[in-house]
Amino acid sequence: MMIHASEATVLSALPNLTPPLASCGSLKRLEAHLLAHQPSIEHWLRQQWLQTPAPFYASVDLRNAGFKIAPVDTNLFPAGFNNLNTTSLPMCIHAVQSALSRLCSTATQILLIPENHTRNQFYLESVATLRDVLDNAGYSVRLGSLIPDLHAPQTVNLPSGKSLYLEPVMREGDRVKLQDFDPCIVLLNNDLSSGRPAILENLSQKVIPPLSLGWSNRLKSEHFTHYKQVAQEFAQLISLDPWFIDPLFSYCHEVDFMKKEGEACLAAQVEMLLAAIQRKYDEYGITHRPFVIVKADAGSYGMGVMTVHSPEEIQSLNRKQRTRMAATKEGQKITKAIIQEGVYTFETWGEKNSVAEPVVYMMDRFVVGGFYRVHTDRGVNENLNAPGMHFEPLAFPEPCCMPDKKQDADACPNRFYAYGVIARLALLAAAREVAETEQIPVL
Amino acid sequence: MMIHASEATVLSALPNLTPPLASCGSLKRLEAHLLAHQPSIEHWLRQQWLQTPAPFYASVDLRNAGFKIAPVDTNLFPAGFNNLNTTSLPMCIHAVQSALSRLCSTATQILLIPENHTRNQFYLESVATLRDVLDNAGYSVRLGSLIPDLHAPQTVNLPSGKSLYLEPVMREGDRVKLQDFDPCIVLLNNDLSSGRPAILENLSQKVIPPLSLGWSNRLKSEHFTHYKQVAQEFAQLISLDPWFIDPLFSYCHEVDFMKKEGEACLAAQVEMLLAAIQRKYDEYGITHRPFVIVKADAGSYGMGVMTVHSPEEIQSLNRKQRTRMAATKEGQKITKAIIQEGVYTFETWGEKNSVAEPVVYMMDRFVVGGFYRVHTDRGVNENLNAPGMHFEPLAFPEPCCMPDKKQDADACPNRFYAYGVIARLALLAAAREVAETEQIPVL
Repeated sequence: MMIHASEATVLSALPNLTPPLASCGSLKRLEAHLLAHQPSIEHWLRQQWLQTPAPFYASVDLRNAGFKIAPVDTNLFPAGFNNLNTTSLPMCIHAVQSALSRLCSTATQILLIPENHTRNQFYLESVATLRDVLDNAGYSVRLGSLIPDLHAPQTVNLPSGKSLYLEPVMREGDRVKLQDFDPCIVLLNNDLSSGRPAILENLSQKVIPPLSLGWSNRLKSEHFTHYKQVAQEFAQLISLDPWFIDPLFSYCHEVDFMKKEGEACLAAQVEMLLAAIQRKYDEYGITHRPFVIVKADAGSYGMGVMTVHSPEEIQSLNRKQRTRMAATKEGQKITKAIIQEGVYTFETWGEKNSVAEPVVYMMDRFVVGGFYRVHTDRGVNENLNAPGMHFEPLAFPEPCCMPDKKQDADACPNRFYAYGVIARLALLAAAREVAETEQIPVL
Repeated sequence: MMIHASEATVLSALPNLTPPLASCGSLKRLEAHLLAHQPSIEHWLRQQWLQTPAPFYASVDLRNAGFKIAPVDTNLFPAGFNNLNTTSLPMCIHAVQSALSRLCSTATQILLIPENHTRNQFYLESVATLRDVLDNAGYSVRLGSLIPDLHAPQTVNLPSGKSLYLEPVMREGDRVKLQDFDPCIVLLNNDLSSGRPAILENLSQKVIPPLSLGWSNRLKSEHFTHYKQVAQEFAQLISLDPWFIDPLFSYCHEVDFMKKEGEACLAAQVEMLLAAIQRKYDEYGITHRPFVIVKADAGSYGMGVMTVHSPEEIQSLNRKQRTRMAATKEGQKITKAIIQEGVYTFETWGEKNSVAEPVVYMMDRFVVGGFYRVHTDRGVNENLNAPGMHFEPLAFPEPCCMPDKKQDADACPNRFYAYGVIARLALLAAAREVAETEQIPVL
């Protein structure tokens, strides 16, 4: 069962890496390597943020295979703030102050636009936490809803005792407003899966993140193309094979799962990718079976995702599997698919050895915290962010910015530091994505 | 007994305001007033930091009289980082990253110059904590000592298990160096009480804070002149009598306690100030006895400080009292005195009702934490930062940036928010001091 922030268990013990791997030493070596290069890593990241400012916020799903730590998804409209340790919140507040001073120094009022699904209380708890962070940062914050049939303000009471006051967004000329509220900043916590809302086009107000970063425009394959470049630069900096931090990927951009179109492309890419992974596994003596994840290139919410071990699986999908792959959030049809190297997650937690996947949160260029998604009923090679799947959030017990060289390389603070580094590489890839889309004139 | 950071007790309960005051409601009103104006306060502060960047770091001693909260000392070379709650450290790390990106974006190596007193283990624990913060922020940090007879590196082992490696600073041309270490930044944690060290003059490296802010140049009366202006602007913003946050003061700049010179000036200023305080007490129905603090205008470390209730006390000082007032740290002679309104501290802690004084820490423009100085053997009208006086540091249990409007105005998070606001006003005064001194060409 998923639980909300105020009840979120704080880890007393870090998830273990299990089963003991022949190549288990590799991760420790990776963590030790990052630790040893900490000053040059931080220096390099500082230079990167000067060239390409960090997005306002992001969360990154990581997978830790023991021999490899890699991001598998980067969310520019993060939810789950309610899952963070409460000690993360002051860091969030300071990071927001830092970001907004840079992005819009005169701002006082923020219009926060959440997703439309008002029945997901876990999501709404995240919105409430985010609102409180913005409020504590010293801004006047109100919630503007894009729900089409919301004609009057609506109060939503939450299990935590907090409540949300959702107001219909009104357009006046080149501004969006609420009743008696003319915001300077429009902060999107809505990933625009169903398209760019006309009401938000061509505003004189600053929209953060830009509309062009919504899933109606964005492709995971573009993000991971940027990430590949970032990983290569970074790997060169610290003399590392970039594969240890970068999942291989490919894509097919003309697929229709219901009509069985594009299957040849998918099967060919799956075969090629599995072979490439196998070569890497052979190079490093990894005896696990390679797998890939096929998912919507413009998808989110873990919908339209499947684990594949052979090209034949693509051709033998049954109707139920095809239906599940055919559409993502809000019924958007999937026509573009990304095929990504599957990264085992060998972190487990608790007596049941539940599979645990770290999610790292960043605001501005700062890692503000994270939590583990712990699943009791999923395998080490499955996507842990899937619709209808319940997970238990376990807040990171420590910050990600306090490595301790006196402790073992994979001790708590050092593992979290490693997660924070890899997550910031994904953040940098996202920053370059933002910079690129902002150069393209919006129609 | 003073204890070091790793043992620092975290407050389970906030100090109480005691004794119950006729005017006790005032403070709650002040805290409620700050809380109600939070967005405009934060907006105003944001604008101020754009105009005048915050100093790299500072700590501010506050006094909470129930009817008044005011800063009584602002330290631009703060010690006591070891007394902060460990949850403050990630905030320190992020604030350092923020400050140094602004001050010297290309920096990688920092030379930290501590005070010369190597026998004060409490101070050295603070240096170790500060070094670790800089290290975690991703810089290469080494300690350069100005101890005149230090000719070879010296290792100092500390009770916490940490150790300091002190190296003699060498001058080469317009740079200071250590063996195989050419820093980009010289960070002073030495208040230069005994003068500007020649070895640090005219460096091509960035010196933070500037040499001109050392106690050899700085006067408390200048700081509090800036603070008065800040308090007035702030009080106007939120419609408040600035006296509620600003201690009245005056000064005499030609005194010699041993030769009994300048006593007439002191007595006259004391009389005038006591009368001014009495008028304010009358205005607000405060029945306590006014008092003033006489201290070295260029002093620090709580040396050369006395509590005075009448002008006659000045004239009747005995030899011991005169000797104590005649010199400050490192034997610097006191010739300039500041006379400051005494602000009662009515916060007490524990079963013994020990007097508690909050100290707030800031790095860059962020309040990163604080602690209470708790004295078992001092009165409500005495200076709590005095030489030889032992205090117990009680780390603030909560951050100063998370006020909670649902709780009572003087509940923990709201009182800490109020402290953070007043401390940042002192920080702003210091920022203006820095800006002013940096305009004066250094000889």
